[in-house]
Amino acid sequence: MAYDLYYWPTIPGRGEYVRLVLETAEVPYRDLARLPDSEGGGIGAMMAFMAGGRGHRFPFAPPFLVDGDLLISQTAEICAVLGERHGLAPKSEADRLFARSIALSTADFVSEAHDTHHPIGVGDYYEDQKNEAKRRAARFRDERMPKYLGWYERLLATNPAGSGHLVGVHLSYADLGLFQTLAGVAYAFPRRMADIVGDYPKTEALAARVAEHPAVAAYLASERRIAFNEDGIFRHYPELDGA
Amino acid sequence: MAYDLYYWPTIPGRGEYVRLVLETAEVPYRDLARLPDSEGGGIGAMMAFMAGGRGHRFPFAPPFLVDGDLLISQTAEICAVLGERHGLAPKSEADRLFARSIALSTADFVSEAHDTHHPIGVGDYYEDQKNEAKRRAARFRDERMPKYLGWYERLLATNPAGSGHLVGVHLSYADLGLFQTLAGVAYAFPRRMADIVGDYPKTEALAARVAEHPAVAAYLASERRIAFNEDGIFRHYPELDGA
Repeated sequence: MAYDLYYWPTIPGRGEYVRLVLETAEVPYRDLARLPDSEGGGIGAMMAFMAGGRGHRFPFAPPFLVDGDLLISQTAEICAVLGERHGLAPKSEADRLFARSIALSTADFVSEAHDTHHPIGVGDYYEDQKNEAKRRAARFRDERMPKYLGWYERLLATNPAGSGHLVGVHLSYADLGLFQTLAGVAYAFPRRMADIVGDYPKTEALAARVAEHPAVAAYLASERRIAFNEDGIFRHYPELDGA
Repeated sequence: MAYDLYYWPTIPGRGEYVRLVLETAEVPYRDLARLPDSEGGGIGAMMAFMAGGRGHRFPFAPPFLVDGDLLISQTAEICAVLGERHGLAPKSEADRLFARSIALSTADFVSEAHDTHHPIGVGDYYEDQKNEAKRRAARFRDERMPKYLGWYERLLATNPAGSGHLVGVHLSYADLGLFQTLAGVAYAFPRRMADIVGDYPKTEALAARVAEHPAVAAYLASERRIAFNEDGIFRHYPELDGA
């Protein structure tokens, strides 16, 4: 077991979800595209892998995780596999499958957050789709944010374990994914989040608890944690926050 | 094992991916929202489940599959679980995980196809976002379709099993997902598909082979198969096809 994570080196993006699981489980890994070319890293190494240079299993897009012969792509799948292997997933089959359903729904939430600033074309500049972005962002703020946050809040309220976690008794990768998404949405839409976060006290409390987890706290304070920025999935454009 | 599938009753949409796995594996299931209310079916039953009326595990959105105590949501996850249980998934861990990566990437392709007609808001009418839809659809046709189709074609070309399947030796749920997506994209963008499909001969051949599989063929000819229509994920609006 020697994990290599491949993801764009200058944004937290979807790779951050994988890092959070690895860091919380205190599992060693290499963050390949952030290593120098001289150590086999860089974007070049990532692109070569995607082009099939490392074998017949190659992903459609980053992030992806390589573990010997195994290639795993898609954020939620990577997080699920790591969580299940390293003590960050529920034990029962029913809870284990439900954690996967939650993480995949969070991945949808993330995609929708991304599309607020790129509603027309991922390859186009934001400036060329700014008006459309304003319309899509308004829908996201008014309809999608409350819908997702309300779902998490109901899960926390009805979890029979009463654990303050989304599923099961202990911290899982599903909780970590929610933590990162809340951080991202709060970065991108600070006004809107300030307006509504009080409606979701259990969700807010879970995020605060995750941030205090010793391994998470140490990671967040480290240089390995990449700050949100305007090249990533979550971008702070005040005009998209209703300002 | 008694499977209940819940999905919108009048569109193929994402539920169709699940049906295809169940039908190909010849596994019995109930299509709950298509049953009459008097048999515990209908949209009302689906909404009640989503509201938490059937327990503490409830999904963010359809489709979802219920099997006793198990609730599984998210299309690719449902298909993976069913495929792995019922002989429609590769055997080795590496291929099994790669099949999941493929199915999840196909789910992204499906979401992008959906967003061509709803780039601004899922709750808004198409007519209110038609100009934006034209722009997004052009990007989808020109950039995203070739990118996804090219990836599938390369997977088929480099699969060491030389099986004509995306991964491993036998038909898997990953192949079924590609089949359905190709059918949907060809329905929504017939001009564009006619122009480019010749560039992806292995992909086209796989889809043709899937359609000839006895269980699939029987299903496609049955009343259980719902035709594509303009309420679904894949919609044929000629103006979005570059017409």
